[in-house]
Amino acid sequence: MSQLHYDLAAIQNLPRRYRGTLLNYLSGFKTANLIGTKNSEGVSNLAIFNSVVHIGANPPYLGFILRPTTVERHTFNNIEATGFYTINAVTKAIYEKAHQTSAKYQADQSEFETVGLKSIHKDDFFAPYVAESPIQWGLQLEEVHPIKCNGTYLVIGKVLQLYLPKDSVEDDGHFDLSQHNIVSIGGLDTYYTSEKLAQLPYAKVNTTETSTP
Amino acid sequence: MSQLHYDLAAIQNLPRRYRGTLLNYLSGFKTANLIGTKNSEGVSNLAIFNSVVHIGANPPYLGFILRPTTVERHTFNNIEATGFYTINAVTKAIYEKAHQTSAKYQADQSEFETVGLKSIHKDDFFAPYVAESPIQWGLQLEEVHPIKCNGTYLVIGKVLQLYLPKDSVEDDGHFDLSQHNIVSIGGLDTYYTSEKLAQLPYAKVNTTETSTP
Repeated sequence: MSQLHYDLAAIQNLPRRYRGTLLNYLSGFKTANLIGTKNSEGVSNLAIFNSVVHIGANPPYLGFILRPTTVERHTFNNIEATGFYTINAVTKAIYEKAHQTSAKYQADQSEFETVGLKSIHKDDFFAPYVAESPIQWGLQLEEVHPIKCNGTYLVIGKVLQLYLPKDSVEDDGHFDLSQHNIVSIGGLDTYYTSEKLAQLPYAKVNTTETSTP
Repeated sequence: MSQLHYDLAAIQNLPRRYRGTLLNYLSGFKTANLIGTKNSEGVSNLAIFNSVVHIGANPPYLGFILRPTTVERHTFNNIEATGFYTINAVTKAIYEKAHQTSAKYQADQSEFETVGLKSIHKDDFFAPYVAESPIQWGLQLEEVHPIKCNGTYLVIGKVLQLYLPKDSVEDDGHFDLSQHNIVSIGGLDTYYTSEKLAQLPYAKVNTTETSTP
């Protein structure tokens, strides 16, 4: 296989936008989620994130990486001020509307209405969920880690509420993301549907493979 | 849509394995990457991670979440002791071998040989790459953030080396993950191939949508 090689200096010499696009793609498929918040004046905000990461199951925590852009700043200001936010899975039916939330709308404008997604409140939770999303998490801010090397942040929340479709979970806890048309993101702007290759068994050391008797 | 609702107490009352499986699925598709390391005795180590996240492009940084399990501990011990590691994309051709690296092999046993992936060294970089992987990153440890709420860690590395296939990148920096058979992970054990829905344009505020004149 014929390869291209970039060392650090070569990466830093790439044109700015090309470098950002390329590096965002190369780290692989990302989860597509909408983060919903509301400010203290009651204006709701919705923004797409491709960096949600599982932090733990017991207690349940999710994290995401915050880049201090205008769009993400509105989301984070609301999270910091109110303590609450929602994370909502993006499907094939709503990915174009979800992507449109990344435009730089003003802070007093709700992306829900502007892009045409329905905001709903449930069980007295402060932040709004995306009605069209099949997986909805309600979170409370837990930890913020400033990342020294480039001024971004790891934001961690505790899961207080979780909604998912009835009859969607198998006996072992398996949830088929492709059957529910959950999409993934390549880079910052390419959306993918997925097809299951296989669910593999829990990997065990095969004793015939080990070098110890 | 008929929904299931779990609040925090209900989530914490789920059976342990069921809860871990379910919550890992629901956060969406994850990137599949193999992390390659070598200890000071020269024994190489390889482990699959589903939590690699883009931290920044200039300078280039990647992060991942470390859970202090046996498997991930071997990886992290090597990173801490030597400072260097590689991140290698997982394709349809190698996902079964990649998954097998999650078995609890002993520290003196190289997962490369055991699962049947080829380790290669390039350009005097200390840590081994996966020869079969089309996207290979060489990184130096930069920051470790202990996550207080559950004892996991965010590990951030600076990209010193990057290898990718020749003629794989479009003029705008776009890299087609599906064309290169990069796989994604649902939960901890389900592998997916993906098909491109669309590359969407950079989202802009449509002035006819805004409420300001």
